[in-house]
Amino acid sequence: MRPGGGTVILTVVQFKEKLAAAVQRNDSLLCVGLDPDPAQMAIEDVAAFNTAIIGATKNLVCAYKPNVAFYEALGRKGWDALERTLEAVPDHIPVIIDAKRGDVGNTAAAYAKAVFDVLGADAMTINPYGGRDSVEPFLERQDKGVFVWCRSSNAGAGDLQDLEVGREGQGRPLWQVVALRARDWNAAGNVGIVVGATYPAQLAEARALCPDMPILIPGVGAQGGAVEEAVKAGIDASGAGIIVSASRGITYASKGPDFAEAARRAALRLRDEINKHRRTAVGAAGPS
Amino acid sequence: MRPGGGTVILTVVQFKEKLAAAVQRNDSLLCVGLDPDPAQMAIEDVAAFNTAIIGATKNLVCAYKPNVAFYEALGRKGWDALERTLEAVPDHIPVIIDAKRGDVGNTAAAYAKAVFDVLGADAMTINPYGGRDSVEPFLERQDKGVFVWCRSSNAGAGDLQDLEVGREGQGRPLWQVVALRARDWNAAGNVGIVVGATYPAQLAEARALCPDMPILIPGVGAQGGAVEEAVKAGIDASGAGIIVSASRGITYASKGPDFAEAARRAALRLRDEINKHRRTAVGAAGPS
Repeated sequence: MRPGGGTVILTVVQFKEKLAAAVQRNDSLLCVGLDPDPAQMAIEDVAAFNTAIIGATKNLVCAYKPNVAFYEALGRKGWDALERTLEAVPDHIPVIIDAKRGDVGNTAAAYAKAVFDVLGADAMTINPYGGRDSVEPFLERQDKGVFVWCRSSNAGAGDLQDLEVGREGQGRPLWQVVALRARDWNAAGNVGIVVGATYPAQLAEARALCPDMPILIPGVGAQGGAVEEAVKAGIDASGAGIIVSASRGITYASKGPDFAEAARRAALRLRDEINKHRRTAVGAAGPS
Repeated sequence: MRPGGGTVILTVVQFKEKLAAAVQRNDSLLCVGLDPDPAQMAIEDVAAFNTAIIGATKNLVCAYKPNVAFYEALGRKGWDALERTLEAVPDHIPVIIDAKRGDVGNTAAAYAKAVFDVLGADAMTINPYGGRDSVEPFLERQDKGVFVWCRSSNAGAGDLQDLEVGREGQGRPLWQVVALRARDWNAAGNVGIVVGATYPAQLAEARALCPDMPILIPGVGAQGGAVEEAVKAGIDASGAGIIVSASRGITYASKGPDFAEAARRAALRLRDEINKHRRTAVGAAGPS
């Protein structure tokens, strides 16, 4: 019974609290990327496929990360599948929409609305190229997580990101300047960075530049990033602070009717491997 | 009657040819941005609103430019409205999807599929931050136009884009390095750049760096860019090569039931103003 005339207190769940709770509950730093590829899926219905993957892995992950591109490639039924996929994620597991959006202010506000309000996601990835006022509409959503694309996981990542930036940056590569900007943008504690697992040296440097910020690490598995190097390079002083994302290696572990069970086995293996290196890394850094 | 046993020859219309034909047919360098904002629209149905705007302006423009953000902000019905909007554009007018997409290779390929195949657009805007292999899936579509976001039109554009890039760039601001990359990426002649109207000095520099490439110029009108400065700074040696985009100033010229007629008047005025400065600029640059 609600107390008569009382005030209804709404507690807004912060992304970082939700993430921390999921990390603890599932003892996991693993994020599963949900990137539908009809050519690799045992069943045609994208939302049903994802729902099966989620059902099989929901006690093994700290987050799910659908990349919008793979839904948009399916046209109007793709957006529908994305909405239905998000409905299948348990309330206690955060969803990070991988969208890498960036545009001028009023357009960025529309993207923030699309991801945070229409889809109801907990966090998203953004592209920093438009500068401070272009990322402001995302940062303003203090209950949501905002991951700035910093060092990408592709082979040509360095093409622009490694360019040495003069004067202000004092000879830093561009991606480090972006990491420092992301740190500046983190006044409300809702900002993280994206650094590919394929570049562990840069990952270690990113951790040094942003000691307290979550790092989303794609590129494990199909893109060739090694788990041990990524975990050791990225882990924070508390033995957490990284979200290790794998997509195809989990969701298409089997292309047959046992895809969900195969995904579960692959996720379990990867979660445990991350935890093994996580504990070693923390042990190594801890008091001797 | 088809000649028996003959070969069917399919002619692929190149974006740049389609654009040039529309520029000539409508004597126009004006692009109308179709960015639905329910708060400003006289009618609720986005596709019907856009169809009325298109009907009223189709003989005044060289292109239409829907920005995907404003459709995604409407959820699944937004994607539907976007598809229906594109169906309403006459075949001889090119559509540039403003999406500023950028991601690693296989994801970029999914975005290219979404925009070029599912939506069937003629061109799109992309974000260069991921480097060469991240833009490759767009560049490969040689019949499509690819506009690289170079210098944005927002107040904080310079935050990253003006950072001086050392060694390789020999002290150039980052956005100029991006312009030069875009020139390198233009081997097939399908690449252009995006430079905001709000920065005419940078627009003139961009034209000098990319003398033969189309420049998409947003930011006229609502964002404060002046037409005369933008046209004079951006026009190429042939008196064309720019696509001047205006959105809210045209589509919301009236918020009443006369919105389409008001859009037509606003588009006519802006087209003619662009043409006036275009002719002055060419006259000034031409033989004396």
